[in-house]
Amino acid sequence: MSIFASLESEVRSYCRSWPVVFDRAVGAHLYDEDGRAYLDFFAGAGALNYGHNNPVLKKALVEYLAEDRITHSLDMHTAAKRDFLETFDEVVLQPRELDYKVQFPGPTGTNSVEAALKLARKVTGRESVVNFTNAFHGMTLGALSVTGDSMKRGGAGIPLVHATPMPYDNYFDGQYPDFLYFERLLGDASSGLNAPAAVIVETVQGEGGINAARFEWLAGLAALCREHGILLIVDDVQMGCGRTGPFFSFEGAGIVPDIVCLSKSIGGYGLPMALTLVRRDLDVWEPGEHNGTFRGHNPAFVTATAALRAYWTDDRLEKSTLAKGEQVERVLQEVCATVPGSRAKGRGLARGMAFEQAGLAGRVAGAAFRRGLLVETSGPEDEVVKLMPPLTVTDDELDQGLALFTESVRECAPA
Amino acid sequence: MSIFASLESEVRSYCRSWPVVFDRAVGAHLYDEDGRAYLDFFAGAGALNYGHNNPVLKKALVEYLAEDRITHSLDMHTAAKRDFLETFDEVVLQPRELDYKVQFPGPTGTNSVEAALKLARKVTGRESVVNFTNAFHGMTLGALSVTGDSMKRGGAGIPLVHATPMPYDNYFDGQYPDFLYFERLLGDASSGLNAPAAVIVETVQGEGGINAARFEWLAGLAALCREHGILLIVDDVQMGCGRTGPFFSFEGAGIVPDIVCLSKSIGGYGLPMALTLVRRDLDVWEPGEHNGTFRGHNPAFVTATAALRAYWTDDRLEKSTLAKGEQVERVLQEVCATVPGSRAKGRGLARGMAFEQAGLAGRVAGAAFRRGLLVETSGPEDEVVKLMPPLTVTDDELDQGLALFTESVRECAPA
Amino acid sequence: MSIFASLESEVRSYCRSWPVVFDRAVGAHLYDEDGRAYLDFFAGAGALNYGHNNPVLKKALVEYLAEDRITHSLDMHTAAKRDFLETFDEVVLQPRELDYKVQFPGPTGTNSVEAALKLARKVTGRESVVNFTNAFHGMTLGALSVTGDSMKRGGAGIPLVHATPMPYDNYFDGQYPDFLYFERLLGDASSGLNAPAAVIVETVQGEGGINAARFEWLAGLAALCREHGILLIVDDVQMGCGRTGPFFSFEGAGIVPDIVCLSKSIGGYGLPMALTLVRRDLDVWEPGEHNGTFRGHNPAFVTATAALRAYWTDDRLEKSTLAKGEQVERVLQEVCATVPGSRAKGRGLARGMAFEQAGLAGRVAGAAFRRGLLVETSGPEDEVVKLMPPLTVTDDELDQGLALFTESVRECAPA
Amino acid sequence: MSIFASLESEVRSYCRSWPVVFDRAVGAHLYDEDGRAYLDFFAGAGALNYGHNNPVLKKALVEYLAEDRITHSLDMHTAAKRDFLETFDEVVLQPRELDYKVQFPGPTGTNSVEAALKLARKVTGRESVVNFTNAFHGMTLGALSVTGDSMKRGGAGIPLVHATPMPYDNYFDGQYPDFLYFERLLGDASSGLNAPAAVIVETVQGEGGINAARFEWLAGLAALCREHGILLIVDDVQMGCGRTGPFFSFEGAGIVPDIVCLSKSIGGYGLPMALTLVRRDLDVWEPGEHNGTFRGHNPAFVTATAALRAYWTDDRLEKSTLAKGEQVERVLQEVCATVPGSRAKGRGLARGMAFEQAGLAGRVAGAAFRRGLLVETSGPEDEVVKLMPPLTVTDDELDQGLALFTESVRECAPA
Repeated sequence: MSIFASLESEVRSYCRSWPVVFDRAVGAHLYDEDGRAYLDFFAGAGALNYGHNNPVLKKALVEYLAEDRITHSLDMHTAAKRDFLETFDEVVLQPRELDYKVQFPGPTGTNSVEAALKLARKVTGRESVVNFTNAFHGMTLGALSVTGDSMKRGGAGIPLVHATPMPYDNYFDGQYPDFLYFERLLGDASSGLNAPAAVIVETVQGEGGINAARFEWLAGLAALCREHGILLIVDDVQMGCGRTGPFFSFEGAGIVPDIVCLSKSIGGYGLPMALTLVRRDLDVWEPGEHNGTFRGHNPAFVTATAALRAYWTDDRLEKSTLAKGEQVERVLQEVCATVPGSRAKGRGLARGMAFEQAGLAGRVAGAAFRRGLLVETSGPEDEVVKLMPPLTVTDDELDQGLALFTESVRECAPA
Repeated sequence: MSIFASLESEVRSYCRSWPVVFDRAVGAHLYDEDGRAYLDFFAGAGALNYGHNNPVLKKALVEYLAEDRITHSLDMHTAAKRDFLETFDEVVLQPRELDYKVQFPGPTGTNSVEAALKLARKVTGRESVVNFTNAFHGMTLGALSVTGDSMKRGGAGIPLVHATPMPYDNYFDGQYPDFLYFERLLGDASSGLNAPAAVIVETVQGEGGINAARFEWLAGLAALCREHGILLIVDDVQMGCGRTGPFFSFEGAGIVPDIVCLSKSIGGYGLPMALTLVRRDLDVWEPGEHNGTFRGHNPAFVTATAALRAYWTDDRLEKSTLAKGEQVERVLQEVCATVPGSRAKGRGLARGMAFEQAGLAGRVAGAAFRRGLLVETSGPEDEVVKLMPPLTVTDDELDQGLALFTESVRECAPA
Repeated sequence: MSIFASLESEVRSYCRSWPVVFDRAVGAHLYDEDGRAYLDFFAGAGALNYGHNNPVLKKALVEYLAEDRITHSLDMHTAAKRDFLETFDEVVLQPRELDYKVQFPGPTGTNSVEAALKLARKVTGRESVVNFTNAFHGMTLGALSVTGDSMKRGGAGIPLVHATPMPYDNYFDGQYPDFLYFERLLGDASSGLNAPAAVIVETVQGEGGINAARFEWLAGLAALCREHGILLIVDDVQMGCGRTGPFFSFEGAGIVPDIVCLSKSIGGYGLPMALTLVRRDLDVWEPGEHNGTFRGHNPAFVTATAALRAYWTDDRLEKSTLAKGEQVERVLQEVCATVPGSRAKGRGLARGMAFEQAGLAGRVAGAAFRRGLLVETSGPEDEVVKLMPPLTVTDDELDQGLALFTESVRECAPA
Repeated sequence: MSIFASLESEVRSYCRSWPVVFDRAVGAHLYDEDGRAYLDFFAGAGALNYGHNNPVLKKALVEYLAEDRITHSLDMHTAAKRDFLETFDEVVLQPRELDYKVQFPGPTGTNSVEAALKLARKVTGRESVVNFTNAFHGMTLGALSVTGDSMKRGGAGIPLVHATPMPYDNYFDGQYPDFLYFERLLGDASSGLNAPAAVIVETVQGEGGINAARFEWLAGLAALCREHGILLIVDDVQMGCGRTGPFFSFEGAGIVPDIVCLSKSIGGYGLPMALTLVRRDLDVWEPGEHNGTFRGHNPAFVTATAALRAYWTDDRLEKSTLAKGEQVERVLQEVCATVPGSRAKGRGLARGMAFEQAGLAGRVAGAAFRRGLLVETSGPEDEVVKLMPPLTVTDDELDQGLALFTESVRECAPA
């Protein structure tokens, strides 16, 4: 492994927790060079909802490549893009009566967020954005300014301004009325809050610690935005594409965001791709006003289309995700009962277990790795172990992973 | 094509000039759905230096996918990444005696630039960056702030600050000493210029109009930076990977930048990938201080490795690029002789023809398209037709393309 | 009055409410050109705590001028400045055991605030400042960024950043624990709040509507700042110099701010003067790092010294201010009892009556003017009538003014 | 003097060069406590154009104060303000056919500049301002951002953005066409220069080293601004009120700025006062959108009016200033002839002698002080000794001061 230590930047991180060299991967399993298998309850931080190298998508991808169909096309029209757009329209937008225009920004979540913020500012003529405590939206300058983590913010090297954090749902354990402070600031012409162009929110904060906002809180937020002419951006990069059950994580809240950011699993196969969905009347971009070399990454369009066709033409995946999520929840509740101060968190298959004792979550993740289970930690103090298997995990794999997780907790926090 | 008009955002641009649906592509040719062939002198804006669906790379890619080797890995260690790092070290860095650490930012040029700017600010504790007139570095907020185009800058919706533009080489047609203003500002403690963390520069400005800086200008810039403790960032996203002949476009200038941004053709096959190369002692990132979901896009590592092995273990590609570049130059000179006020520009296979008459470049590109040749325009007034064929273009294809280009000019600007 | 309408900028404001030409003034009275007297319960917005043309100060001032002692001195040493410093030390600082260095910024409150913010940022190396809802700190860019009023903020023409507003005391009518949000943000490394260099606060918000923070709230704020290494700046420009009773308005809270801003009444006679008091160990300015032409305005030093000697060598003024304040409070309570939704506010001789009905406060002020009483309105909706007579107002004048005020309320809001 | 060292902030500066305590002052002389006289060729950095305690102004001032006429009035109408406005209109504006509205900002130069910048941004909807190398405009955040001195800029503690410095006249010793870079940047839609709201310029840079811009350069600048819809702000704080001869320093250039900043000598007597003159159609302020406690400092209006009546109803002062300026120039030329590398600079009675040898200017100023002559240094390296006597200096005093200066140079730089 010396080439990594000697040549790759110190910025590398996951590899420090999992010091092996991975080589192959299928479904919910990765394999290192020595052939050892790892059950993946991490799923590319949400980029692998359909598992590694999903055979349905793989078939479409390999065929596409084999036939020399176009790979790279900037924003030219291609047959692959047309297929994707038609499928996305038919399978995702129309059934949900969503009237969005589809923007292809650069193929990363942070680029989708940048496009969303730029457009919100352009449309409203306002500069300020409201974000939430413990938010994560990306690492480029615009997205970083609405991200909470102070270490990551410090990396900017310049003051990150134009954003004001508001308390996320349950930030005060439910003791105070939702939006008390935000609403008061908006209604007070001398509050000192710059009128926001947009609010950007995750329905479940993945990096922030698997904090799931209640649907009524999200609905209240949407209403507040509407009342004050603020655009609502839902960053569904990690929680979209079925992670919480429905295709969009906000569906359960009965809201329609003005702008939606998608990336990670939208490409289906772990290939870089991102979308920014924009309410039709807000699509005031000039041609080329936001661009990027890889916004026409056709292999990802192909696997994205295949994934939509395979998983979203009926409600089976959604139902199975919800059922599996409940299974995870049950096990977590049992485990939590044995660890004082711990608690289960999350929605759908975005689940987590929060530990009170400092460092314990990290030790549990380490113990899990030694048992062949990949889980990462999140939260401001890395106090939460995230359980995010592929949505396509089998029941057996799920049980197996949960058993390994339970053992790992037992090892680190003997009852 | 109605789905594009009805569903894709107004931000789409290239497709407006080339209103066909592309489907297949091999080498220097694209094919639309009707099977019509187009000779590609655009090459994905520099992302397809080795041509479309290059068979050598394709073979490696398809095999990798077929064997279910890992596709998506964030920044975990993978065999594919190791192969890439070892190859990059052996084929690119060591022969050039370059002691860089390799950072994998998100897989786009703008993300590489964001990482470079953040690191430069972190290292120096300064916030300001000097960029150049007509620069293009990307669309996310940090990269956009050092980009020149006012329409694109306007898309930010907030003031783009922390950057001061300096005149690029030849901005005043050589009448004034290089760096006169910049050097004076740096040497004057009351000039009002914030001390720059970094200078960011393209050796040839692609989007800015195929402006090729003289090597002595680049060397002078590097010396000036060194003298004032300013980091030199070369954005080699479009001009690197052999576009101007050598692997890095700055090699001819005899300079060693502190940070180098690579993307576009580094993945070889048009797949999203980016690198930020960092002088070893500047690699002060904290683990995870800059991250991104798709920084471990293994299929791109595979094609990148294959491309390095196929094209950069000897100097044949470099020599052929230079030779082909001279061929383009010869033809351009001939054509220019017939169009008053026009002139040939560029280096290697990044070439362009600048027209004096407003709108003429666009009409030439349109005429070329009708003849089956894809060329785009660039420059502040879209006054330059860019000629950027794949480096792997055959001599016949090159001649054919140049002939089509010549005819197109003739049509639009009859001698 | 045509010259005002034809030549003075539209920015003029008080003169619109009081469309007469004032000419003379003594004590608590102004006189217009026609000799009509106006009782002044406005006191130069707090700049005339010792009344107009106070004879004790006037004597010192006229003698100083008559003897050709130095008027303008930048920051040279002058006898007048020495007298002021010695007196300020002896009369104000030493008795209160305050170990401040004294900075003379430009002679306005906003300049004192600018100096405070600059120094706080320099000392801490942080850029962000926390201000409070409904704050007013001045109109220059730094001070304006921590001011709440959206109309005034809009005048900046650029985004006002680097500041985050927190709820002032009682912003939620006591239903919410003090500092709940602020404390949580500070303690959460992923809250998204940039670590603040300083908190800037008024103990009673004059422009914000005569909002008096409870002493325990101020003490809690000081403790919170200390705990998190945040400098506490008290802007005592309007409430200092005895307006609330003691010389500094924060004395009752038992706190010692790190930086204190003084202006308005510090010069005693309504002459421009300002101070920035800086905790001794924070005085890290370079010579000349903050300067200004009129920071050595000696006539103001003379009247300032005379005022300190006349009014602050014993506790008579403080006691009389508190007693008069209680008298105002009593009358306000009676008046409030007759106007549904109204309430009395304030501390010492910074008092106000808040009206619920939109526009009522303005009508009351207009009625008072017609009766010969000058009062201004404040608060985010101009919903408060401020009662701020000179501290030297006689008991008779006070009774007379309160009677006129009571009549004015009666007229506009018949019981 | 211990109280200064022990209690006054380290930010104090002039007093370090002149370690005596000044007490009295008349005309061109100051006197220290021991009665020693100093000839003042510094004149309050331009605030004392009519000398110290000018008897004509003093009479008006003392009478005004003695009669209890109103001292402090915020922006209420007062007889003193009316007299000033009428006089300013009659004596200054009308004869010059200038159609400005008069704004009274806070009574300091920096506040006038802040008002100017805010208004320019509001009018144009642009945020960026172009300033010049070696500019000095003030210490509050907006004014500081357009000031050149890096030590002073560093005091801000936050990045000073929104401004781009352009080369002042003669910055390249005439080898470079005027405005070459600026004009090119403005004309190039991809230059990266944010479209400026305004250009702010001093006609002679006092703090910057007595750099006098040629009139044709100023006229060219005005034309360039007009062509590009950029407002031209002349900061005449130091050079206005006759310092260079005519009342406004820009009169000789035949230009009419859109906004003019005045302070320092406008009050006549060294009392704090400032004006922002605004082209009538640009006066789009809302009432109270920019305010300040001391914008109605009536004693300064009184002395300002008296000064205008005494000195500006005919051209005698202007002529005498020009004549005296020529006398200074003659002597400077003689002295310069004896010091290799030195040169005379300036216009009217804003004169300076630049020394090549580091530290020499400071030593000359020190030698002058020992001889009883007060002169300060300026310029980016403090390389210029400024000679700025009151305009009312007598011929004898001028000769005497020039003789002392000549001796001081001789002492420090023996021929």
